[in-house]
Amino acid sequence: MTTGICRPEEIRDWQREVDVIVVGLGAAGAAAALEASATGAETLVLECASGGGGTSAMSGGTIYLGGGTALQKACGFEDSTQAMFDYLMASVGDALNEEKVRLYCEGSCDHYDWLVEQGVPFNPVFYPDSGDAPTSDGLVWSGSEQSYPYCEIAAPAPRGHVPACEGLSGSLLMQKLCAAVDASPAEVATDHRCVELVQEPDGSVVGVIATKFGERRAIRARRGIVITTGGFILDDRMLDQHMPFVKGVHLRVAANGDDGSGIRLGMAAGASTLHMDKASISLPVTEPWGLKRGILVNAQGQRFVNEDAYYGDLGEAALVHNDGHAWLIVDDVIFEQPEYPPREVSAVGETPIELERGLGLPEGSLESTLALYNRHAEDKRDPVFHKAEQYVQPIVTPPFGAFDCNVESSLYGAFTLGGLETDVDGRILDPEGNVIPGLHGAGRATAGLSTGGYASGLSLGDGTFFGRRAGRTAATRKPG
Amino acid sequence: MTTGICRPEEIRDWQREVDVIVVGLGAAGAAAALEASATGAETLVLECASGGGGTSAMSGGTIYLGGGTALQKACGFEDSTQAMFDYLMASVGDALNEEKVRLYCEGSCDHYDWLVEQGVPFNPVFYPDSGDAPTSDGLVWSGSEQSYPYCEIAAPAPRGHVPACEGLSGSLLMQKLCAAVDASPAEVATDHRCVELVQEPDGSVVGVIATKFGERRAIRARRGIVITTGGFILDDRMLDQHMPFVKGVHLRVAANGDDGSGIRLGMAAGASTLHMDKASISLPVTEPWGLKRGILVNAQGQRFVNEDAYYGDLGEAALVHNDGHAWLIVDDVIFEQPEYPPREVSAVGETPIELERGLGLPEGSLESTLALYNRHAEDKRDPVFHKAEQYVQPIVTPPFGAFDCNVESSLYGAFTLGGLETDVDGRILDPEGNVIPGLHGAGRATAGLSTGGYASGLSLGDGTFFGRRAGRTAATRKPG
Repeated sequence: MTTGICRPEEIRDWQREVDVIVVGLGAAGAAAALEASATGAETLVLECASGGGGTSAMSGGTIYLGGGTALQKACGFEDSTQAMFDYLMASVGDALNEEKVRLYCEGSCDHYDWLVEQGVPFNPVFYPDSGDAPTSDGLVWSGSEQSYPYCEIAAPAPRGHVPACEGLSGSLLMQKLCAAVDASPAEVATDHRCVELVQEPDGSVVGVIATKFGERRAIRARRGIVITTGGFILDDRMLDQHMPFVKGVHLRVAANGDDGSGIRLGMAAGASTLHMDKASISLPVTEPWGLKRGILVNAQGQRFVNEDAYYGDLGEAALVHNDGHAWLIVDDVIFEQPEYPPREVSAVGETPIELERGLGLPEGSLESTLALYNRHAEDKRDPVFHKAEQYVQPIVTPPFGAFDCNVESSLYGAFTLGGLETDVDGRILDPEGNVIPGLHGAGRATAGLSTGGYASGLSLGDGTFFGRRAGRTAATRKPG
Repeated sequence: MTTGICRPEEIRDWQREVDVIVVGLGAAGAAAALEASATGAETLVLECASGGGGTSAMSGGTIYLGGGTALQKACGFEDSTQAMFDYLMASVGDALNEEKVRLYCEGSCDHYDWLVEQGVPFNPVFYPDSGDAPTSDGLVWSGSEQSYPYCEIAAPAPRGHVPACEGLSGSLLMQKLCAAVDASPAEVATDHRCVELVQEPDGSVVGVIATKFGERRAIRARRGIVITTGGFILDDRMLDQHMPFVKGVHLRVAANGDDGSGIRLGMAAGASTLHMDKASISLPVTEPWGLKRGILVNAQGQRFVNEDAYYGDLGEAALVHNDGHAWLIVDDVIFEQPEYPPREVSAVGETPIELERGLGLPEGSLESTLALYNRHAEDKRDPVFHKAEQYVQPIVTPPFGAFDCNVESSLYGAFTLGGLETDVDGRILDPEGNVIPGLHGAGRATAGLSTGGYASGLSLGDGTFFGRRAGRTAATRKPG
């Protein structure tokens, strides 16, 4: 048999039978389990670690929501479903996932209320200075809404909803969601690793084989299985297969679980995958935001992006399109040493030419780039990359400096965006677009809202939103 | 059952039983059939069209071979297996396919002799002026061997081996290979579309369901099946899934068969896929090669590639990394209208600024780019992109002109490079890297030598080379 699949006839006796099996207890798994058990379905969550949380618990905790959520209103911001939809379609959507984006935007306000009902706290305070609030403030800008070209496509609004705690809020988010699961009828079995799917000859998936400390346990699912095992940023072989360029990134944003095992199990059952080559790649070099007044240049000494874009857009532009060779050029007025992440200064020079030599850039390249930039900056304009006016000022005050933004020597963060193909209700599809009966998925084990491009909070957002839909779909499926 | 798969028990009676079934009669299928039947295995080729040839017959016919082939020697060129290996690893290889690249380079001379034995004629004449010989000359430069950085990595040699006929040589190649198949013991069944694989519960693939004019025929393979059905450039859904950016390309290099059906059949059987997001993207704007003296600029008026690179590198740089917005800037000295493909002139100007305005480029951008380029060109240098000296000359003689290289209005050619994952012997692998018994593949239905990046002739090259290996592997497999 293809690895990862076994047949019902190979199973002597089932150790357990429930309605719904959820594989993985991150944000998506918690949402699926809560919704499945809320329908009255007997629900069992299998988690390979000794406790819930997964990568969600290690994240910043930001959840991308909008369209006029209670939190946005409390912070005095206007937003609309249409503006959110237009922004997401322009930044991360495509023809294939338009319906998912639409459903997500239409259900966004209710989904925020649901998170609050589960006990997730948000402070009705807007944090203006960066995409990662170091405070317990609840609302931040978490994408490129204010940057070109998006600011011309949709009315910008901050949509990063951050659970109320100092620093990384993901742990608080998962404390609350796991507590809600514990308080629900759903049962959680930790230290259970799902190693095989049980598939009928007709293709329907009816159970799983899980191992606990080496012992194999066959567990039957009357109604459905939901795979929420996370992405594959920790699996070197899958990275070699699909995105070797990410292997050089120092920070792989992941808990131990993100080894792609659930994606491979789905593929073994005949599932289709999408966007396996896409990752969220963060280059947080323009925090605090005063550094957006600098210019990012590549190995040719050329600019390549509007520096006020979301740091995920900066990371993708630098790593995917410029081989991970980049520097942020500042002058004495703009220079400030960020608290986190620390940034090395690659070179300093009294003149652009001196800095250019110090960086080993082609003769005259940085000089030429700065001359054109400054010429327009005198008029507060950036006709080349359209950086917002408040970040455009001539870079003319020596000494000039360059922050190291090269992938081999500076901080990039990455996690995978591709995975199993699902319909809008979380059913996993085969290569012809047909449902694999009994098999569902959500979170980064599946391809979500992003088809490339990113905004902070989209993964916790689509993981919980479509996790709930997948849990409901599995729980209400006719018993096999 | 997952679409595309059926179980042996569903089959009342097998209409036919052979040792090896080859699905598709392009270059890879012909090579697989020739090798399988040469071992004495009873071999049946199923072709969905009414005759053999496939996309191979519509191609330029160039086959990428080297290491000192008889043709290279006859044309007076030195080459080595190591130089070919170093070039391919630097341009299209990675950790995952290093062994395939090594085997290909080591077997390249013998493979050339084999092609000659099959009746494929080559004229021992080198054609120096472009990558596509309009004559019947047999040897051309078909990659970026002479361009930076490759010229510094490996000793360059022309490796494009072109069957002897004027114009596109693919039809001649396939006439000869199909004639060789007809003269072999292998049998060809045309108008047979393979619609399902027959898979045992243990995962092994033992036959196919083919339809002929709507009638279903079950055909059993005692030893193995070889999928050589081509890529998926004609399947819009798969393009939406994996490379929507290619849908805007006018020329999809493909015969009707390149609909991804064979890739989807393999996936349905639990196969892994690789590089589904990668395509060969040609921008043949620097033919004749005198046009390499121009400079390619993007929507920011910046250069982005050394213009003397292979036109596939130009196409990838323009479409994948610069959104398909590009122009080739020339002056009155460099300007010449290519015979094929015809190229529109987007704008003309007496000065760089006038041309810049005509193209709607950011104010001062093209002027600045030309100033830096010309400054170095005075010394025959290009320190920014390292274009070869013979193509570097100041662009200073009015009028200045811009050839349209925008994807929506000019000619790009594209075909897909991703597909089923195979081992070096053509066995198709599952997501865990294990063999799916009985299932083999070659050609563009599989991921081949290129993991991104390309050189003309790699697909006919790896399709025939690994097609032969797949045919041999299937034919010598223990009967199921």
